[in-house]
Amino acid sequence: MSEKITNIINELEKLDYKNLFQDDFLHTWDKSQEELQAIFTVADALRAMREENISPKIFDSGLGISLFRDNSTRTRFSFASACNLLGLEVQDLDEGKSQQAHGETVKETANMISFMADVVGIRDDMYIGKGYKYMKDFSSYVQEGYDDGVLEQRPTLVNLQCDEDHPTQAMADLLHVIHEFGGVENLKGKKVAMTWAYSPSYGKPLSVPQGISALFTRFGMDVVLAHPEGYEIMPEIEKIAEDNAKTYGGSFTKTNSMEEAFKDADIVYPKSWAPFAAMEERTELYGNGDQAGIDRLEKELLEQNKQHMDWAATEDMMKLTKDGKALYMHCLPADITGVSCETGEVDATVFDRYRVPLYKEASFKPYIIAAMILLQKVENPVETLKQLVADAKERQKNK
Amino acid sequence: MSEKITNIINELEKLDYKNLFQDDFLHTWDKSQEELQAIFTVADALRAMREENISPKIFDSGLGISLFRDNSTRTRFSFASACNLLGLEVQDLDEGKSQQAHGETVKETANMISFMADVVGIRDDMYIGKGYKYMKDFSSYVQEGYDDGVLEQRPTLVNLQCDEDHPTQAMADLLHVIHEFGGVENLKGKKVAMTWAYSPSYGKPLSVPQGISALFTRFGMDVVLAHPEGYEIMPEIEKIAEDNAKTYGGSFTKTNSMEEAFKDADIVYPKSWAPFAAMEERTELYGNGDQAGIDRLEKELLEQNKQHMDWAATEDMMKLTKDGKALYMHCLPADITGVSCETGEVDATVFDRYRVPLYKEASFKPYIIAAMILLQKVENPVETLKQLVADAKERQKNK
Amino acid sequence: MSEKITNIINELEKLDYKNLFQDDFLHTWDKSQEELQAIFTVADALRAMREENISPKIFDSGLGISLFRDNSTRTRFSFASACNLLGLEVQDLDEGKSQQAHGETVKETANMISFMADVVGIRDDMYIGKGYKYMKDFSSYVQEGYDDGVLEQRPTLVNLQCDEDHPTQAMADLLHVIHEFGGVENLKGKKVAMTWAYSPSYGKPLSVPQGISALFTRFGMDVVLAHPEGYEIMPEIEKIAEDNAKTYGGSFTKTNSMEEAFKDADIVYPKSWAPFAAMEERTELYGNGDQAGIDRLEKELLEQNKQHMDWAATEDMMKLTKDGKALYMHCLPADITGVSCETGEVDATVFDRYRVPLYKEASFKPYIIAAMILLQKVENPVETLKQLVADAKERQKNK
Repeated sequence: MSEKITNIINELEKLDYKNLFQDDFLHTWDKSQEELQAIFTVADALRAMREENISPKIFDSGLGISLFRDNSTRTRFSFASACNLLGLEVQDLDEGKSQQAHGETVKETANMISFMADVVGIRDDMYIGKGYKYMKDFSSYVQEGYDDGVLEQRPTLVNLQCDEDHPTQAMADLLHVIHEFGGVENLKGKKVAMTWAYSPSYGKPLSVPQGISALFTRFGMDVVLAHPEGYEIMPEIEKIAEDNAKTYGGSFTKTNSMEEAFKDADIVYPKSWAPFAAMEERTELYGNGDQAGIDRLEKELLEQNKQHMDWAATEDMMKLTKDGKALYMHCLPADITGVSCETGEVDATVFDRYRVPLYKEASFKPYIIAAMILLQKVENPVETLKQLVADAKERQKNK
Repeated sequence: MSEKITNIINELEKLDYKNLFQDDFLHTWDKSQEELQAIFTVADALRAMREENISPKIFDSGLGISLFRDNSTRTRFSFASACNLLGLEVQDLDEGKSQQAHGETVKETANMISFMADVVGIRDDMYIGKGYKYMKDFSSYVQEGYDDGVLEQRPTLVNLQCDEDHPTQAMADLLHVIHEFGGVENLKGKKVAMTWAYSPSYGKPLSVPQGISALFTRFGMDVVLAHPEGYEIMPEIEKIAEDNAKTYGGSFTKTNSMEEAFKDADIVYPKSWAPFAAMEERTELYGNGDQAGIDRLEKELLEQNKQHMDWAATEDMMKLTKDGKALYMHCLPADITGVSCETGEVDATVFDRYRVPLYKEASFKPYIIAAMILLQKVENPVETLKQLVADAKERQKNK
Repeated sequence: MSEKITNIINELEKLDYKNLFQDDFLHTWDKSQEELQAIFTVADALRAMREENISPKIFDSGLGISLFRDNSTRTRFSFASACNLLGLEVQDLDEGKSQQAHGETVKETANMISFMADVVGIRDDMYIGKGYKYMKDFSSYVQEGYDDGVLEQRPTLVNLQCDEDHPTQAMADLLHVIHEFGGVENLKGKKVAMTWAYSPSYGKPLSVPQGISALFTRFGMDVVLAHPEGYEIMPEIEKIAEDNAKTYGGSFTKTNSMEEAFKDADIVYPKSWAPFAAMEERTELYGNGDQAGIDRLEKELLEQNKQHMDWAATEDMMKLTKDGKALYMHCLPADITGVSCETGEVDATVFDRYRVPLYKEASFKPYIIAAMILLQKVENPVETLKQLVADAKERQKNK
């Protein structure tokens, strides 16, 4: 066994994460610090195993179901990669973008597709107040099916983005930060600017700023949430971030000045999102099938955005950060000024300088998802990982 | 080896099912009693193995092709689950809903997609006189390809629903009944009400009432087929049911009274379907591309349905059954009054009371499909199952 | 080990193909004679292994990504079959038919989908001057991602059809010819008629006549390219064919007479394609979004085609070939006169007489693709194949 993998597994042995087993991953804030740490550790272990050509397959057969309420090439590939790495085949359940009926219909579908499902990955981020609720309902329906003897096993759920949180993104982002800063112990006191940025496109979800605010405040970091007036995030999530700051010894502050947020920041995460109130209105309009209202709202929102075109990660803005060298982050794809749009979230030269770290940031997501699945399905992960490494089955012959 | 699995395999050893090997599964009535029994037995064995975390993979690689002439999430998942359990990856061949040209084109497609296909699951239920014919043609084309040395192996076919039969549904339904009544030996003399029910939707296939009539009459049961005048099923299938009744010591009767069918029934299966004559007309209209005619027919059929809105599994109707406690069955999804539609096939309270058995009924389908594939591809299933159980490879590590 | 497989592996041992390792397969003319020979040999080995029920899985997990800019059931199935045979799961990246933006966007997508991708199969044949370029760009982007530490491994590329070459088709075609003529040593001096033929459909790609001209001239064959005036292929490819003829001792001639090409031919490959100049114009029109221009061009091209309806593989034409018995080839599907269209590329009786060899021709493609992947991913293929044969893991248990 390579020393690297041995060390990772030894770290895992010290943590208490037993409550992850047979649970779902919906919000980062439902989980303890050690549980999150366990996910990071297993993600590192799986990556090291793959890099050393050791197969981490824990399933000989089985299905991973992707249930996306929105098109998503990247999330689909991340989920498929994670499932495949562990030995699961992906089946997509495409339900279109419609607001699905809850209750009877969802209960039936949840059971019908889960007879042989080991994991269900759900993305449902389009409607405020609906996405997370859908996942909770789905979770209770498969639990009921399992308790009633309908399902041989209860599939575990992974939230691939909802209206409240985007845990696989935020966790991948944080794992990237941990690696960039040389360990979780180095995060304390680092300043993170989670800021709004201008985009010519409409209605981007709030799950990233919310997920980052709620997660990064748990590691003693000083998180500054910056946005123009009217672009508030959900108040419940701000409350979580504030409580985290108290508990974990960091801080969570808000400002309407991008400059203030960028000033001496170690990390900047400038990204567009829609105003919360508008997203709520949109949910209402879609619910009523009010197309005229939807069109009117879109027009208004684009006009509103246009009043804040100066919110961008320009070269000048970057100079304000710590030594002018803050780690620039983005969940991708970014709206790059002069490349993907006329005026966008970030200058082309800034984006280009950070391309490699940005791609690396994204590369953690499949491993984060795989780690969540493994810890939710396997009762004794330390023993299982040790056995996989001892077996040392090649992922690819004669690589 | 667990005693349960040992007993199941011992049962299999007593049966004669050698003709299933290298054949297709198109109609239940093409098969002998022992062949059907073998499929039930292998389905039970595969389920027990999965529940005991023993991998039943018989393929190290291979493809299962799903060829659906209609959208179908549930059937697609059942087929994918069955294939995955045995080690096959599913590839979907989506040909749209058009009436496909036969002959040259089908022959070529059948061969082109089958170079590495181990099984092909076909669903083609939309046109009377076309679906089964298509499967037979497909079967002869791949046989020809195999005989000519084009195909390394001949893929086996599974009928996932045609205009005549719905064998995976009817077999799953019967396996559910066998489990509910404690064994196939307890079916003799049980009264089964296969009845039409009102639905506000249009043109549901006849394959379920036909499949149930033709299969349930083979186990000494008293099958009553009930429907309003004009909703007859195919006469050839009625003839099969009548012959079965004579051969196997049960009965097959017809009535235009739902009450008569429900009276003292042990099992009720109330479900909407389109009139046979209308389905024939529809096939003709589609063939001619007569959209005006299709629209007119739909309107007429919905009007015709509306004259029979009293055909429903209401609480009052259920009281007529044996002790008021008949087993309520449905292939799902059902049209539930006040839930999925204003007036439908079944009262919400009735459906709700039977939800668990209904879901269990559906849970047998993937295992029935897997059993069909296994018995059609493996020359000595008893030996193979014993070996799988002896190897005891975990389906999931450390479950 | 069967003698057949032993002999094939012994043949492979004599060849120099080490430069295939970790490279892509984009053009046949980028490869040496021995490299092509190695691909044929491994394709034969994989086929023999499958026929003897020996699993050739070299991957325990991994993804094959299909990136098709056009619908394609057959190519999709060939690629999926090849991937599955080697142990890779296929994920489709459907980008629609639009001319995709290059640069930034492609670079990002290429990396985002490749974190766990072992192979990417690309089909992009719709636009002259774009398809191959797209593949080269994609290749350099994943190389960059690998060099930068973003990708754990560099996925290998397989060209599944571009504007210049169709290497998996041409290689499968040639392997078919090698088998029909009893060995590569028997190809010298054989006359091949690669000819245009009339089709009522519009805008078929040039990649097949180009791929055949560039590949078949490498084995000492006398290739005659015949087409009506105005249906020239790309001049760069003609140059390659001419150079091959000089290097490898065959010939490459052009004619505007189908009769001249068919005269005493050992092999005929009559197939429709669009005029090169028209395809260039079409690329321009699509680029400008000029729908009126596209419609006008289509009309013109169909008119132009109609002037050459006598270019067809009729019974009379076949009589001109060597003993009237040339091997008739086609990439399928063919436009068959009186079957798939009123007047087409080939007489129904001719097509029918050659159906079995035509299907066999197609059957080589999955093995060619699998051989390309294996040789590009495995460092020591001889050792790996020997080990697979020695392990003799059944592809299907108890077949």
